[in-house]
This record gives sequence, C-alpha cells and structure tokens, in this order.
Amino acid sequence: MIHNFNPGPAALPPAVIARAQAELADYHGTGMSILEMSHRSKEYEAINATAEAHLKALLGLGDDYRVLFMQGGASMQFALIPLNLLPAGGVAEYIVTGSWGEKAYEEAQRLGNTRLLASTAADGYRSLPDAEALTPDPQAAYLHITTNETIQGVQWPAELPELGSAPLVADMSSDFLARPFPAERFALMYAGAQKNLGPAGVTVVVIRQDLIERGRKDLPVIMRYATFAKNNSLYNTPPVFAVYMVNLVLEWIKEQGGLVAMAERNARKAAMVYEAIDSSNGFYAGHAAPEARSLMNVTFRLPSAELEKRFLSEAQAAGMVGLAGHRSVGGIRASLYNAVSPESAATLASFMREFAQRYG
Amino acid sequence: MIHNFNPGPAALPPAVIARAQAELADYHGTGMSILEMSHRSKEYEAINATAEAHLKALLGLGDDYRVLFMQGGASMQFALIPLNLLPAGGVAEYIVTGSWGEKAYEEAQRLGNTRLLASTAADGYRSLPDAEALTPDPQAAYLHITTNETIQGVQWPAELPELGSAPLVADMSSDFLARPFPAERFALMYAGAQKNLGPAGVTVVVIRQDLIERGRKDLPVIMRYATFAKNNSLYNTPPVFAVYMVNLVLEWIKEQGGLVAMAERNARKAAMVYEAIDSSNGFYAGHAAPEARSLMNVTFRLPSAELEKRFLSEAQAAGMVGLAGHRSVGGIRASLYNAVSPESAATLASFMREFAQRYG
Ligand SMILES: Cc1ncc(COP(=O)(O)O)c(C=O)c1O
Ligand SMILES: Cc1ncc(COP(=O)(O)O)c(C=O)c1O
Ligand SMILES: [Mg+2]
Ligand SMILES: [Mg+2]
Ligand SMILES: [Mg+2]
Ligand SMILES: [Mg+2]
Repeated sequence: MIHNFNPGPAALPPAVIARAQAELADYHGTGMSILEMSHRSKEYEAINATAEAHLKALLGLGDDYRVLFMQGGASMQFALIPLNLLPAGGVAEYIVTGSWGEKAYEEAQRLGNTRLLASTAADGYRSLPDAEALTPDPQAAYLHITTNETIQGVQWPAELPELGSAPLVADMSSDFLARPFPAERFALMYAGAQKNLGPAGVTVVVIRQDLIERGRKDLPVIMRYATFAKNNSLYNTPPVFAVYMVNLVLEWIKEQGGLVAMAERNARKAAMVYEAIDSSNGFYAGHAAPEARSLMNVTFRLPSAELEKRFLSEAQAAGMVGLAGHRSVGGIRASLYNAVSPESAATLASFMREFAQRYG
Repeated sequence: MIHNFNPGPAALPPAVIARAQAELADYHGTGMSILEMSHRSKEYEAINATAEAHLKALLGLGDDYRVLFMQGGASMQFALIPLNLLPAGGVAEYIVTGSWGEKAYEEAQRLGNTRLLASTAADGYRSLPDAEALTPDPQAAYLHITTNETIQGVQWPAELPELGSAPLVADMSSDFLARPFPAERFALMYAGAQKNLGPAGVTVVVIRQDLIERGRKDLPVIMRYATFAKNNSLYNTPPVFAVYMVNLVLEWIKEQGGLVAMAERNARKAAMVYEAIDSSNGFYAGHAAPEARSLMNVTFRLPSAELEKRFLSEAQAAGMVGLAGHRSVGGIRASLYNAVSPESAATLASFMREFAQRYG
C-alpha cells in the first residue's frame, strides 16, 4: 500500500484510475482508445462540454463565466495573463505570499507595468499580509494573488478579506476545488490540473466574459483567451486525455458530495497532520504561521537536516512517498490534495508521532 | 474491428495501448500510476531522457541538437518560432503549400517582418513550388516550410531540393518519423505528437544548439526555447503521460526497424490507396498532383457530394472511421500514419474498388 503525498503531479482517486484503465483500450464501445479519438468527435465534444458544465456547477457560476482548457501549465498563465489583460497604459498589482506568486510577478514585470501591492518575503513567506493595511488601486488592470502557496504551505482563507475593486485574478493551482469559496469574486481563476484536478497536461482557466472581450487583440491568435473561448477550447488540438481525466475527477468530486464534502475531507486530513506537529513539543516546527496554514500542503522542519533525511527514508520504507520539501526550501512537505485519502493522512500522522518519540 | 483513419489524434500501435493499459494502475512496481508520479521522480526523468535519446538516435542527430517536449500544439510553435528566432531587424521567409503553412505564416506576420517566398494557393494547394525558381534570402532569420500538409495531402520529398542557406525550420506535425530524411539539414523541426508520435498533449521540438543560444532574451521565460533546453523540458510540469506515451511509441518504431521500416510500411499502405484512386477511371479524383502526393494523408473527391456522404457512411458501417476530409475542403481524406496497419489500408482500398464498381 503506497501513500502518495506528491506535490503535483499527485495522487488521483483510485476509482478514477480504475475506470481509466478499464476503458483505455475501447472508449465506450467505439473500438478505439480515447487516446486515438479525434478532438472533433462527438465523444470528445461531450467530454469537453461536460467538463466545463461540471466545473461551473461545482463553482456555482453562470453564463457570465467561461471555462477554458489550455496547455502550458500555470507557468504559461503567468505570461498570458499580463499579455491579455494588461494594456500599455495600465498597471497590474500583485500580492506575493510565496515562491509561485514571485514567479508570476516576475513574468508580469517583463511584460508591462506592475506594482507589488504586498509581499511576505521578509518573514520567509510564513504569513498573509494584513489586508486592512493594503491600498489596492481601483484603476489597476487586475490584482493577482496565489490562493495557496504550494512550496511554503501558506493559504488564503476561503472567504478572502476585502481586496479592492480591480478584477481579482488568482492562481489556484494547488487548492482549486478543495473547498467551497465565493468564485464570483474572481474575474479569472486558473489551475494546472496536476494537483486537485487530474494528471499534468491541462490548465483550467475560469474567466469572466468581460475579461475575454477586453483582451488585447494584437497578440498571436494562440495566446488569446478570446480564441479559446470562441472555439470552446478547440481552436487547435486539445490535450484530449488530460481533459478526459479531469472530467472523471470532476465526476468523482460530485459523487463524493461536491466542494462541501471535499472541504470536510481536507480539513480532517490536515487536522491530523498539524496535530502531529503541534503535539510534538517542538520536534516538528511548522513553517507557516498557524493562521496562514494550508489545508493542502503541510510544511515543517525537523531539528536537523540529518533527522529530516532519516524521516524521509523511514517514511519511504513505510510506503509514504513524495514527502520531501521543495528543493528550494528543504524540510518536509505533505501534500494532502482532494484525492489523498484520510487513511494516508492518518498513517502519516501516526508515523510522525512514533518518529518523534524515537528521535525527539 | 475498427480501422482508424483519423487525421490526428490518430491510431496508435495496439501493442502500445495494451502496454499503457496494463501498467496504468501501477507503474513498474511503484504502486502508483504514471499519472500520479512526480515529474521530478527518477522514473519520469528516465522517460524524459530516454525519449530524447530515442528521438536523436532515430534522426541520427548528435550533441548539436536538443529535443524539447513542449505544450500548446504545433499552433503554439507558429508563434514561438518568430518570437524566439525573428529579431527586430530581420525577416523570416515562408513557403506555403497548404492550410497549415498559411496559419504559420499568418501568425508570424503578426510578430515581425516576413516574406512569402512561395505559395501554391493559386492551384488550390495541389503541388509544390519549383525550387529552382525560388530566390531564398541567405540573410533571412529562417525559412519555414511544412513538410506535409495534412489537409491537402501534399508532401515534400524526403530529399528536399536545395532551399538556400538560411536556417531551415519545418512543421513536420503530420510526417515526422514516417521515413528516413536528412535531419541535419533542418535547424528546427517540430511536430504535435498526435499523428505519428503519440496522443495529443505534447509537441516535440528538435532544435540546433546555435538557434537556442540565438533566441531572444526579452521574452517571457516560459516562451523561450532556452528555458526548455536548459531545464531538460522540466522548467515547469511537463505533460507526463503524453511524454510517456511518446516514449512507448518511439520504442515501438525502433522495434519495427526504425525509420526505414516505417518508410517501407507507409509506402506500401499509400500505394494501395492511390492505386484504388488511379484505377477508378476517374471515379476518385486525387486532390494532390501525383508528384506532390502525401504518403500520410490521401485526399480525394468523388463525383458528387451525395456520393461522398454515402461513401463515408458505408465506410463507417464497415468499420472505417475518420475518413471525412477536413471541414475546410470537404471530400475524403485517409490518414495513414505510422501506426495505421497495412490491413487497414488494404481494407480501405478494396472497399474503394467495390464502391466505385457499384456507383461508378
Ligand atoms: C501554486 C502554483 N502555481 C504555479 C505552479 C506551476 O505550475 P506548472 O508546472 O503547471 O506550470 C505550481 C506548480 O507546482 C503551483 O503549485
Ligand atoms: C501540419 C500541421 N501543422 C499544425 C497543426 C496544428 O497542430 P495543433 O493542433 O497541435 O496545434 C496540424 C494539426 O493537424 C498539422 O497537421
Ligand atoms: Mg498543465
Ligand atoms: Mg490524447
Ligand atoms: Mg500538442
Ligand atoms: Mg500526466
């Protein structure tokens, strides 16, 4: 039994993998694999449309939003967002609460006028900025945040503080669909699929219609949100299999009870692991400030690099994989995305307690 | 028994699908699906490196070339090529022999100075330009061609005529690895995987080192070839499953006998279908001029739209799918990529003969 704590690509629901495997050689009696089917086939058009509909239903969004299935990862969005939405005379504001926000901000700086509205770099990305002290520019082209910083394990609350009136753009790569949230507060949300949504290879962009129309027209066709919207993500060949998998994962989320069920499941898992940290008398030191702790990525250190190495190798021997912290920060990171089971979280928590007893 | 003539995504080798299915739930004893594995795992690093090595071996290329696994399709390359390789003062030349070359040229026109060196639009994209009459600019940033026009079924010969001394850039989406060819004549080759190489979702770019270094530095990081080269295509999360599938297809090509075996197989298949056209006393009218005929996409018309509809529905009833011509040109198109079996081609050819007898 393997417990998969990979930060992304990450664990998928066993039922989804079983289904993909069962129908891989013959998709719904067509005699072909989904891997061999045209993106213009009625079967794929149905997958594409169903996935968009599931997403909008889970988010409670109506006709004023579109869901786009794109390629290139969240990193491509770091560039496409300013390219599409930051006009020559405008300014884009960024709040940076970790490494991914930093990258998004850096890419935008190459492409237009930007303003760093807030950064928590000074405290090592352990916290969230005090929203009341911020002065967002209502004239900004957009304000960009990262709802969950995967590397530092810092997450905004589902109910965000007031952040001004500029269109709110959010990188939700590592906490999309992990809990209910007021999606209509966002003008654009995006997420690489490979954490909560499916395998690597597709990026989900949820965008409000007015932003599509506002998009710059002097871009390459393939880089315009308008191109993807107008063509239902079928302007060119989409990553068929990845979208198919996302659709299966969305069905699984629905069957589990939707975002409310995900939130309950995720809170339960995170509580087990944070409890193992908090009851360790300081043997485990959480990275994030308690009020900024992520439900998705639990980051912590041990008293020494040597103990961290031992922790990882003993965990591996016990079937727990993917626990090494990001190479840029070290330490331990347990990623607890939707598909990670409560059993995996419980196994990790009890291993942590037992390890702390032995070495603490 | 289904005969899959899809233009892309297209047929894959049955042995490859069987293997992918067999190991989908547990990749090589890791207890995880390849869909759940980190792109930083040693397993994926091996896939990534092996796929690059296989490609270079099949093409006979050495250390002066790199293979990049990118996202966004060939359509994204239409933009990335001029973005990276066309400097402000330079000019890029295009030879347009069909719809895809047209799109590549249009995208480049938005991004810099271009020159249409030749176009066969006037004859409905049935032929190749007379290379001796061309005057390519040796100072051009690059010269772009489309080795096989998927929609019109027009293909350059494997041994290209002399095309001047500017770096040669080629869209090989629909005939990459279909036959041996002098790869070292090209400075950059690219192909969406979904025809000859694997499923949709990854684009293979083979680029000469000097072009990587020459690339513009003022682009978003994610749009630079240098970023992908420096990071072995792992700057950000790659489309893991699609690259895994490409690697399996490359192994299959090798096992079959490499590009020489592919050429023999492909020539045999195309001969069967063209022979059914040529022996039909004009019932089937091939689109491409005989000397420009594609081995990959056989395009033809019937005497009436009504007969074409009947042809498609009877073919479908007999298990032959994907034969409708592209929506922009109509008629029939049989795509005979590497993985399409000689049996499928023979089945189609005998259906064509029998259909012509009944309705001719
Ligand atoms: C929050 C966040 N943003 C962006 C990225 C980059 O995503 P991609 O690799 O799909 O470009 C990641 C990847 O881990 C992430 O966690
Ligand atoms: C020759 C050629 N170039 C480019 C494309 C566009 O490829 P993609 O859909 O991967 O962007 C195609 C797709 O069929 C093609 O056949
Ligand atoms: Mg992606
Ligand atoms: Mg696919
Ligand atoms: Mg592609
Ligand atoms: Mg994958």
